[in-house]
Amino acid sequence: MAKKQPANPIANSAGNGLLDRRLFLTGGLASLGIALSPVVNASESTINRARKPWMQSPGRALGDYGQPSQHEAAVVREGRTSQVGTLGSGASRTPLQDLQGTITPSGLHFERHHSGIPDIHPEQLQLSVQGLVKQPLKFSLNDLARYPLTTKTYFLECSGNSAVNLGPNPALLTCGGIHGLVSASEWTGVPVSYLLDEAGIDSKAKWVVAEGADAARMNRSIPLDKMLDDALLALYQNGERLRPEQGYPVRLLLPGYEGNTSVKWLHRLEVSAQPAMSRQETSKYTDLNLDGRAEMFTFEMGVKSAITSPSGNQQLTGKGYYEISGLAWSGYGPVRKVDVSADGGKTWAAAQLEEPILDKSLTRFRIPWHWDGTPCTLLSRAADAQNHQPTRAQYTKAKGTSGFYHYNAMQAWRIEADGGIHNVYV
Amino acid sequence: MAKKQPANPIANSAGNGLLDRRLFLTGGLASLGIALSPVVNASESTINRARKPWMQSPGRALGDYGQPSQHEAAVVREGRTSQVGTLGSGASRTPLQDLQGTITPSGLHFERHHSGIPDIHPEQLQLSVQGLVKQPLKFSLNDLARYPLTTKTYFLECSGNSAVNLGPNPALLTCGGIHGLVSASEWTGVPVSYLLDEAGIDSKAKWVVAEGADAARMNRSIPLDKMLDDALLALYQNGERLRPEQGYPVRLLLPGYEGNTSVKWLHRLEVSAQPAMSRQETSKYTDLNLDGRAEMFTFEMGVKSAITSPSGNQQLTGKGYYEISGLAWSGYGPVRKVDVSADGGKTWAAAQLEEPILDKSLTRFRIPWHWDGTPCTLLSRAADAQNHQPTRAQYTKAKGTSGFYHYNAMQAWRIEADGGIHNVYV
Repeated sequence: MAKKQPANPIANSAGNGLLDRRLFLTGGLASLGIALSPVVNASESTINRARKPWMQSPGRALGDYGQPSQHEAAVVREGRTSQVGTLGSGASRTPLQDLQGTITPSGLHFERHHSGIPDIHPEQLQLSVQGLVKQPLKFSLNDLARYPLTTKTYFLECSGNSAVNLGPNPALLTCGGIHGLVSASEWTGVPVSYLLDEAGIDSKAKWVVAEGADAARMNRSIPLDKMLDDALLALYQNGERLRPEQGYPVRLLLPGYEGNTSVKWLHRLEVSAQPAMSRQETSKYTDLNLDGRAEMFTFEMGVKSAITSPSGNQQLTGKGYYEISGLAWSGYGPVRKVDVSADGGKTWAAAQLEEPILDKSLTRFRIPWHWDGTPCTLLSRAADAQNHQPTRAQYTKAKGTSGFYHYNAMQAWRIEADGGIHNVYV
Repeated sequence: MAKKQPANPIANSAGNGLLDRRLFLTGGLASLGIALSPVVNASESTINRARKPWMQSPGRALGDYGQPSQHEAAVVREGRTSQVGTLGSGASRTPLQDLQGTITPSGLHFERHHSGIPDIHPEQLQLSVQGLVKQPLKFSLNDLARYPLTTKTYFLECSGNSAVNLGPNPALLTCGGIHGLVSASEWTGVPVSYLLDEAGIDSKAKWVVAEGADAARMNRSIPLDKMLDDALLALYQNGERLRPEQGYPVRLLLPGYEGNTSVKWLHRLEVSAQPAMSRQETSKYTDLNLDGRAEMFTFEMGVKSAITSPSGNQQLTGKGYYEISGLAWSGYGPVRKVDVSADGGKTWAAAQLEEPILDKSLTRFRIPWHWDGTPCTLLSRAADAQNHQPTRAQYTKAKGTSGFYHYNAMQAWRIEADGGIHNVYV
């Protein structure tokens, strides 16, 4: 029996042109009757026989440490903000809309510093483990490097990421400008549990206060259970030693927790019975509820996603085929599903998730789309094993708009008839 | 019933101090009676209360595109060699002994160029698909970027990697100096099959000749089946656009194949019935056999491993605990097992493999080791589902020492009584 061909070659999987995510496993673009590439006339049989300028003489020499192409000079961290009177107390964001895959180039990892980037000489670093321990310990960087290492890819997200979307009007920013306080790296380091085991934990211990060696002496109180679970003393980022902005020579790395707790330039772990109630866990990094009370120690970052392409301030060049692509993540575990809507949330289709889907890491999703040229609204929603990403309306109904941290509602991008794209609330 | 404690806290898993790879899941270092860290006297209860220089004033400002710490300036590509009279025709190597994890920082990816690094303006690139096709096509970079993308982590290895170990005497080089023509990146690109499907392949087609837009016009002939399988047109490397040294703005990426075939600065794919028999597949990149005949088109890189730490020209600081760590890979599929020997190959223990173990990518292996301070020889051997890494004697018996490409025998590191380490043949 012959296979029946679909009457309409554009096999919709949801409204407004969302195509089946497996499209390219079957007929591909040809089955859609869509050609993306200009054809070549028969008379052009010698295409690319002419030598371009860069083929006429030998190119640049081999180098010590490579850099991006000069033609990519515009791809830099964006949305850089510093507190008045400072240069290093503030944040800069990963330009998510310019990137692909799941790893963030170390040079573009978001920054959030409380007193700039200290220049720590690695041979002078000393990390102490003290407080409620049987035997206080101190470690040079060389001491640490002799411990067994482990390698894991994890995202880091600032707790205040995306909070601009709590404002009364949608900010006309790029995807990175709104959501770029999230990045992912392959981290290699020493499990904190090894050091705590060696020091011997007192039975009264419940917390570990981690303190950085920057001028702000940034500190946070971490539940002992987390420190004994998957906490790392990260020494390497994407294969090489940590970048200065990421805590060189050693940072704490708490998978899934708000970025602020992964204390950079780490020099002290103090085991204690109580949290420190430090500035960064009292006046900052608390979640204001509708009743006016604030929750403290809300560590896990909620399940979240954003379409990175097409996205805010980009431009579609006309109706036809596009790939919708974005990132999803959750501080509670692996992403299980991402749905995409091209009709403002009326209908949804499951996006393809790039393998491997790693725990507490960024997951790239993709879905093919045929834009008919009329205005519409794109949305994505992610889910992990337990949690679903809320709509903005659901989020603000539960939490109000006066908070700042842990905002994880869906991002909507409005596409206008001229192909212009901007942030919108739906 | 109480658990029985082992009589000897150092539970050997193979000769000369190799410990169980699961050591740190159980008692850890404490069970060995080994403390790696200096303890702190009771009188030192105020450790790290003194402000170091970098804590006394605010640090450096936020930045556009980050760079490594100035204290890591020595970590650069090594073993740079250029052909006489050229600056850009040659190779440089990844300093494997200075790195950790599995991703190679893009700035340290090995280089192998045949006429330097061309500076290609991305808007002027034109990629043509021609030859035995129903409809020749040409693509601008913007055309390509509209196709569906896929993200995969793959190693790239130069076919001549490690060939120095075919020499009559062991070269006293670092691990990177010997094996550093291998690197791994997360690549994102367009499957070549999409473009070939759209062009329509003639039934006589068997090969695709890929040509670069460098001054050398480097070209290689690739079996059509490989191009229709997992070949990528890579546009992104570790999240950002390709680095110039890696083929900006677009390169071919052939998972598991010798690096030379993953043609950089790609501008032409010519579908053909026969291979081109080009310079790089006739006078170079062929495998000389014992009978004096050379094999052509030997694409897959064999299963291989090397201990990166401790490794050549490094220095152990005294007897005691160390982690042995290294990399394993195979062009035929995922690494299934890595064994390590600390007694020159007499006994072997299975190393721990870091998850996820990805197809045709670098796999990090680790095993704990207690060095007793006497001279010894470390070795590693990797296996994939079908193949085992040979000893040097097995390799040279089968292939002789006059070849150059696809050398994949085991690496031995000799450790002297003073802790010095050097390359050795066993």
